[in-house]
Amino acid sequence: MPSEPFAHVIAAIATPFRGDLSVDFGRMIAHAIWLFETGCDGLVLFGTTGEAASLTAGERKAILEHLVKAGIDAEKIVVGTGCCAVADTVELTKHASAIGCAGALVLPPFFYKGLSDEGIIRYFDRVIAECGSSLSALYLYHIPQTAGAGVSPDVVAALVARHGGKIRGYKDSSGNWSNTAAILSRFPQLDVYVGSETLLSENLRAGGAGCISASVNVQPGTVRRVYDGWNTREGEALQNAATGARKSLEQTGALIAAVKTIVGDIHREPEWATVRPPLDPLPQKAHADLLAKLRSYDLEGLQ
Amino acid sequence: MPSEPFAHVIAAIATPFRGDLSVDFGRMIAHAIWLFETGCDGLVLFGTTGEAASLTAGERKAILEHLVKAGIDAEKIVVGTGCCAVADTVELTKHASAIGCAGALVLPPFFYKGLSDEGIIRYFDRVIAECGSSLSALYLYHIPQTAGAGVSPDVVAALVARHGGKIRGYKDSSGNWSNTAAILSRFPQLDVYVGSETLLSENLRAGGAGCISASVNVQPGTVRRVYDGWNTREGEALQNAATGARKSLEQTGALIAAVKTIVGDIHREPEWATVRPPLDPLPQKAHADLLAKLRSYDLEGLQ
Repeated sequence: MPSEPFAHVIAAIATPFRGDLSVDFGRMIAHAIWLFETGCDGLVLFGTTGEAASLTAGERKAILEHLVKAGIDAEKIVVGTGCCAVADTVELTKHASAIGCAGALVLPPFFYKGLSDEGIIRYFDRVIAECGSSLSALYLYHIPQTAGAGVSPDVVAALVARHGGKIRGYKDSSGNWSNTAAILSRFPQLDVYVGSETLLSENLRAGGAGCISASVNVQPGTVRRVYDGWNTREGEALQNAATGARKSLEQTGALIAAVKTIVGDIHREPEWATVRPPLDPLPQKAHADLLAKLRSYDLEGLQ
Repeated sequence: MPSEPFAHVIAAIATPFRGDLSVDFGRMIAHAIWLFETGCDGLVLFGTTGEAASLTAGERKAILEHLVKAGIDAEKIVVGTGCCAVADTVELTKHASAIGCAGALVLPPFFYKGLSDEGIIRYFDRVIAECGSSLSALYLYHIPQTAGAGVSPDVVAALVARHGGKIRGYKDSSGNWSNTAAILSRFPQLDVYVGSETLLSENLRAGGAGCISASVNVQPGTVRRVYDGWNTREGEALQNAATGARKSLEQTGALIAAVKTIVGDIHREPEWATVRPPLDPLPQKAHADLLAKLRSYDLEGLQ
C-alpha cells in the first residue's frame, strides 16, 4: 500500500528579496512558518512562483538550508530542482535529498522548443540515473505554457514503466482539466496536484492529492477549508471564494508580482513586493484595484 | 571611429560529447582549429548550437579555458553567457572578460513568458551594472522562437541610450529579415550578424558585419567565399550554394544534431553526432538522405 501524500494544501512559496534584490532569508522563514500556521501542510520551494529561474544554485541551496535550520520539517518540503542541464538538476536534487526533503519537483528542460517525447524521457532518465539511490521521490512538473515542453501522459507512462515508485507525483499547472483527468485515470498510484486552487475540489473528487499553488501564499486558510470541506454543504461556497480570489490575482496579468505584493500587505512588509528581472513589479493602480477585490474574500491578515 | 568587427564569418561552434555525454575538450579544440583554417575568422561559444543550455557553468568555463590554452585567440571568441538568473550571466561574462574574449553574447531570460520590454531592459541593465568595468562588449542575442523573449529594436534603443558603446552588436537568429533591416537602419553603430548564412549577402549589402551560424560548422569555406565575393559576379552562385546546404540541414527538423553528425563525417569521428538530452540524435535514414543532398554542395572534407 502506498504511503500518504507528503501534503495536500501546498504553497508554491514566493521568494522574498530585499530592495537590492538579495534573498531575504528571515522573511522567507517567517512566511513559511505563517503558511504552516494558517493552513498549509506542505511547501514547494523554487517553483515558477518562487522565481526559481532567477535564483542561482547557491541561493537555492542556502534558502533550503535556512528553512530547515529554522525548524521547518524537511519532510514537508518538495524542492523544485529542474534546470536545463541534467548535471544542474542532479546537483540540486541530491542536495534536497541530503537535507531529507520529501522529494524533487522537476520540469522538463525549457530552452529548446519542439522537443520530442523521447528527448524529454531521455532527460528524466538521465536525471534519475545520475541521482541514483539518493533520489527518494520525483514529482513531474507540467507547465507547458511557460516551460515550452510539457510532461504528457505518454511521457509519464514511459517513466513509470522504467522507474516505478520513484515517480511519486505530478503537478499539473496547465490549467487544462482534461490533462489532469487523464493523468488521474491512467496513473492512480501517483499523487496528482493541480497548480491552482480553482480546480482543487474537482481534483479531490477525482482522487487527486491536493494543490500546489502560487495563490496559496495569500489564502492558505481558505484553501485549507476547501480541502477539509469540499464534500460538505459549504464546500461549493468555499471553493467559489478561493476561486474568486485566485482569479483576481490572475487578472492583474502579473500573478507572481501580485501574490508577492499581497503577501507584503498581509505581513505589512512592502519590500515583499520586490521581484527580480525580468519580472515586472505590480503597478500601484493594479495593486489598489486588486486589494479592493480581495477584501471581499476575507483573506487572513489582510487589512 | 568605431573599431572593426571582431570577425565576420563566425561558427556558432558545436560542443562535442563523448559517448558518456562528457565534454570532449580535445575534439572541440581540433574542430576550432579546423574552422579557423578553413574559413572562419571568429567563433561564438555556447550559443543555441553549442547546447549552452545543456552545459553547466563549470563546463562552459573549462571549455573556454581549454581553447585559449590551446592557442585559439581569445579576441576572436565571443562567449554566449546568457542565463535566466542575472548572477549566473554576470559570473560567466566576467569569466569571459578575464580571459580576454572579444565580448559576451547574451539572450534574454528564457523561462518566463509574456515579458515586457521594461522587464527585459531591467535584466540587461542589471547584468551590465553588475559586470561593471569588466564588460568590454555586449552582443544582444535575438532568437525569440527559442528563447520566448526577443530583443526588439525598442529594447536595443533603450540599452544603447543607457550604455552606449558597451552595446557592441546584435545577432538576429529570428530569420526575419525585416527585423534585421530595422536594426541595421536604426543602429548603424552596431555590428549586426544574421544567424544563418542564407541571409549573409543581404546583410552585407545592407551594411551588416557577417553571420554567426550553426551551419558554418560544416561549410566554413563556402561561407568565407560568400563573404569575400558577395559583390562579385560569382557572389550569387556562392550564396545559393551556401543557402542550399543550410536548408538541407534545416529540413532534417533537427538542425543541431544534423550539424554535429556532419561535423563527425568531416572529421571521421562518428562520436561527434552525440547530443545531450533533451535533443534527439539524427536518425540514420535522415543522415543518409542529408549526406546525399550535401554531397552536391562540395563541402570541405566531406567524403
